[in-house]
Amino acid sequence: MTESWVNSAERIGVDLHLELSGPGGRRAALTRALREAVRGGRLAPGTRLPPYRSLAADLGVARNTVADAYAELVAEGWLTARQGSGTRVAERARPSRQAAGAGARAQAPARARGPRHDLRQGRPDASAFPRTAWAASYRRALQAAPSEAFGPGDPAGRRELREALAEYLARARGVRTAPDRIVICSGFAHALRLLFGRDAPGGPAGGGVLRGPLGVEAYGLGFHRDLLAAAGVRTVPLPLDEHGARVAALGRERAVLLTPAHQFPTGGPLRAERRAAVIDWARARGAVVLEDDYDGEFRYDRRPVGALQGLDPERVIHIGSVSKSLSPALRLGWMVLPERYVEPVLAVKGEREGWASVPDQLALADFVACGSYDRHVRRMRQRYRSRRDRLVAALAERAPHIGVTGIAAGLHAVLRLPSGTEQTVVEAAARRGIALDGLAAFRHPDSPASAGDGLVVGYAAPADHPYGAALEALCEVLSTA
Amino acid sequence: MTESWVNSAERIGVDLHLELSGPGGRRAALTRALREAVRGGRLAPGTRLPPYRSLAADLGVARNTVADAYAELVAEGWLTARQGSGTRVAERARPSRQAAGAGARAQAPARARGPRHDLRQGRPDASAFPRTAWAASYRRALQAAPSEAFGPGDPAGRRELREALAEYLARARGVRTAPDRIVICSGFAHALRLLFGRDAPGGPAGGGVLRGPLGVEAYGLGFHRDLLAAAGVRTVPLPLDEHGARVAALGRERAVLLTPAHQFPTGGPLRAERRAAVIDWARARGAVVLEDDYDGEFRYDRRPVGALQGLDPERVIHIGSVSKSLSPALRLGWMVLPERYVEPVLAVKGEREGWASVPDQLALADFVACGSYDRHVRRMRQRYRSRRDRLVAALAERAPHIGVTGIAAGLHAVLRLPSGTEQTVVEAAARRGIALDGLAAFRHPDSPASAGDGLVVGYAAPADHPYGAALEALCEVLSTA
Repeated sequence: MTESWVNSAERIGVDLHLELSGPGGRRAALTRALREAVRGGRLAPGTRLPPYRSLAADLGVARNTVADAYAELVAEGWLTARQGSGTRVAERARPSRQAAGAGARAQAPARARGPRHDLRQGRPDASAFPRTAWAASYRRALQAAPSEAFGPGDPAGRRELREALAEYLARARGVRTAPDRIVICSGFAHALRLLFGRDAPGGPAGGGVLRGPLGVEAYGLGFHRDLLAAAGVRTVPLPLDEHGARVAALGRERAVLLTPAHQFPTGGPLRAERRAAVIDWARARGAVVLEDDYDGEFRYDRRPVGALQGLDPERVIHIGSVSKSLSPALRLGWMVLPERYVEPVLAVKGEREGWASVPDQLALADFVACGSYDRHVRRMRQRYRSRRDRLVAALAERAPHIGVTGIAAGLHAVLRLPSGTEQTVVEAAARRGIALDGLAAFRHPDSPASAGDGLVVGYAAPADHPYGAALEALCEVLSTA
Repeated sequence: MTESWVNSAERIGVDLHLELSGPGGRRAALTRALREAVRGGRLAPGTRLPPYRSLAADLGVARNTVADAYAELVAEGWLTARQGSGTRVAERARPSRQAAGAGARAQAPARARGPRHDLRQGRPDASAFPRTAWAASYRRALQAAPSEAFGPGDPAGRRELREALAEYLARARGVRTAPDRIVICSGFAHALRLLFGRDAPGGPAGGGVLRGPLGVEAYGLGFHRDLLAAAGVRTVPLPLDEHGARVAALGRERAVLLTPAHQFPTGGPLRAERRAAVIDWARARGAVVLEDDYDGEFRYDRRPVGALQGLDPERVIHIGSVSKSLSPALRLGWMVLPERYVEPVLAVKGEREGWASVPDQLALADFVACGSYDRHVRRMRQRYRSRRDRLVAALAERAPHIGVTGIAAGLHAVLRLPSGTEQTVVEAAARRGIALDGLAAFRHPDSPASAGDGLVVGYAAPADHPYGAALEALCEVLSTA
């Protein structure tokens, strides 16, 4: 998809050519093109952008696509939006300097400041990282490590960590495995790349370890869909209802990617009959189920549902990471693999490619084995639970017409909005400096059914104190929605 | 390339089907197939393998290809070789167990034991990792880090580290850059993948940041060539002579990958006129030079040659890592980029893909800034220099007919062998439990000219004490070569 747009000078006062190219959908392409134009200085600070409607007409895209792109760039700090005066390039968005030897890349203002209120999904409270306990594990691990730990590593990851994880995942998540079935990676996206990527010298000739078409939930992370599309994998959306993904719709797909513990982002667990049905489908078809256990440890109402993997370790690839439970900064995750995939994945991963840091792996092994991981998860579970309770209470008082759906779990909640209001609310929130997403941002482009209007509110990212202010700002926006 | 071979039962006593498929050349495919057959139990412990000549004839490959594969598997511990009794499957190479819940992947005996004498190239002395100084840097960095360091990161890498590296690379390597031109990655292979890989959702539509054909030195790491081939990049070998790569042979290539400080593996620096000439070529053609500065800090005779990048920061991508200087276990490297490549590389790297561990990045920033990195490099320079001196002295005494070529630099030396003897010597070394490579292992398959017979001896990998025994074993092999 490539389209371009040259605006008329009277409308925004600059001559601007936008190319909507590259994978990732029109919204992503437009966001990228606008960000690039601001960053590169083609759109000067203070410049007024055209109204949604006229830019949408010029580009031949939906009005919502433009509104989404503007809202995202407002939240990032590149643009500002004020009711009455429209959307403008932020005064602080200075273009990049061209001279070599000088700082050549413009700092995104968002990188320096972040949004005023960060309610984006998928982010744990960075202020709660257990520095003292982690530093102790790191020091112990570094002292105890054999010399060979500092030489070339095993692409499977350190055995110490795989042993600790096998024990932990069995105990905490009902995963049936052994250290030799676990491959360490740097997170969920890295796992997808190892499974589906085609550019690996040690991989199967002409393709990834797994191939498409891949069934995915009708709502999910666009980032994952983009990554799969770039690897040439076709994704087929599965409808969602109150019992989770309708797995009966699976047909000739070769694999399916699910979030069984807590559907992302709509928030329900996969019902027991469907858990059994998807395993039956995989057995009958010789297919495989990818289980994204992204927040399985954070369930607040009763005991977490065990991993789907426990039903059939030979048909499910269980994928987890510390990105939600501890920090995305560590870049540590794991795949629990059926026997037949272990060697192909290791061949793709290769002997020198992209292992996670070995000292960090050893530190995590110690952190899990000595109980610090359990303690931290319990502490964060209480904290996030109370965040969710505060959100529910605040809405009940200030915006009682807004319902909270999904189970009491995870790091985000979905707020139901009156039909047709999502876009307006997301824009109003962006004007208040609140960074969050509407449900529409997660919808698979080929999904026939809509899950309705809603907001995906990540309540974990702010520290405890700023959370109160973020909640206050959100309630103000919603009370008039 | 796919070939298969079913041996006759009387020859090796088992029914074995070998498929030579996948990228990476015949030697790599055969090594993989044999390793897999041993690991999977199809070749039982004690089984005698066919002589080189007959297996080579069956598979339609060169005798050397079979000999190389056997030698590699002997060094890894899967096979054993004794003069007179041929090559057999090692008694310790137990097949993988099939039962779930049990250890499912056979441990490579080599992973547990390693070769008796490790003289493989590219490996620093793992026993010399500066645990105390590193732990101190890590602790300081963890304490000083702002909370946002534990949230989602900047794909460019931590600013603290880019600032420390910009200062260090300017001072120690003559690199002309700024923090905004540096992108942190996990090592050289990761850099190649970011530059040439096609599977990135944020990347340029339909291709990598750079495209082939790519000029490469006629001798180099097969691993890099495999990685490039898997990314669809054609590599064109440049002849080598005593002044380094003959860059005058460059024509319509779009980029060239060089090791200017210390040609890998043959060991000379790129002569000054050629340094200038390759920059002229890049300017005239709009091409780019990739500078692999893999061991630029380790020069023992006089001051290191500065980085080629200093000649033209807009035409050279300078790539380095701590893999040789500190440890490959940290998975930390960097790219110093011309302005125009910064944003495309960051788009490929993406906001959530494969950053290096943030705590490790912060620790390295501290380690460099407080002078620990310089101290460690100076200490290792002395150690490796004395290793090289011991090698030269031992050969002068025990095998005076063997010459050592290349400059006094780096972590390896090239020993010249009498013509036609390389394969025999590599096999004899493997029988003695010495893991090392012959020069032929590094030759580009399309290279018309041979650099002659030689051994690439990595003198850095063993700790100080075992190095003496390794040298002794090597001299015994060479005294009769």
